Amino acid sequence: MSYQTDNIFARILRGELPCVKVYEDAHTIAFMDIMPQAEGHLLVIPREGAASLLDLSAEAARETIVVVQKLARAAKQAFDAPGIQVVQMNGSAAGQTVFHCHFHVIPRQEDAPLRAHATEPVPTERLEALAQKVRAALAQT
Amino acid sequence: MSYQTDNIFARILRGELPCVKVYEDAHTIAFMDIMPQAEGHLLVIPREGAASLLDLSAEAARETIVVVQKLARAAKQAFDAPGIQVVQMNGSAAGQTVFHCHFHVIPRQEDAPLRAHATEPVPTERLEALAQKVRAALAQT
Repeated sequence: MSYQTDNIFARILRGELPCVKVYEDAHTIAFMDIMPQAEGHLLVIPREGAASLLDLSAEAARETIVVVQKLARAAKQAFDAPGIQVVQMNGSAAGQTVFHCHFHVIPRQEDAPLRAHATEPVPTERLEALAQKVRAALAQT
Repeated sequence: MSYQTDNIFARILRGELPCVKVYEDAHTIAFMDIMPQAEGHLLVIPREGAASLLDLSAEAARETIVVVQKLARAAKQAFDAPGIQVVQMNGSAAGQTVFHCHFHVIPRQEDAPLRAHATEPVPTERLEALAQKVRAALAQT
């Protein structure tokens, strides 16, 4: 899959679009999904421009999965979530809608089915309140 | 989450239960899911005993994600799959049923919704035929 530099995650990485960021390092950034499937739904993306996990370098994949672990632990703590689901879609047939490789980190509560993705955006103030909980949990670990 | 050594993936790793293996190295093994959500559904597991991705060492996570990439590429080729979905569940609230950390690598075809997990096991001969395609694709990459 060829990489298009005008996708929204590329634009977030370049600072052209805002995001509610919870973490960043030299290789990755993590921010709140604006169309969450559950409360506290996070996205972790590599800075490397790759349309999918299949196209991503091994080095970037290694760096990214460690941040997925970190955010999964933080989200579990921040939202008192008994479950954490990690989903990573490649290709529109798999449900991918933004063609920059990304990992969903989704807190799961007991008996709470996932909402459909991309239904209604959550207001930034609400995402910011959730992000504060994640940042606080990250600071403790 | 404490790790129980009698889970079925631990038993597969010890050779006490069979699996239709497609790949192994010092850190991971990969095999066909016997209750596939789509044709060619694979599992990649670290050899390290960890109940979830949250409990897994960073080193094992790094080794495992690179094998997930490898298997995703092989499955795409083997099953001519336009999409590859990677799913990794932590905790029963997230749908985890075997408490040894594992990554699902699921080939997705256009307009083919996923089947529910753990409905009907696929006969070993059929899984073996699918595994041959994955092994052939791995051998080419």
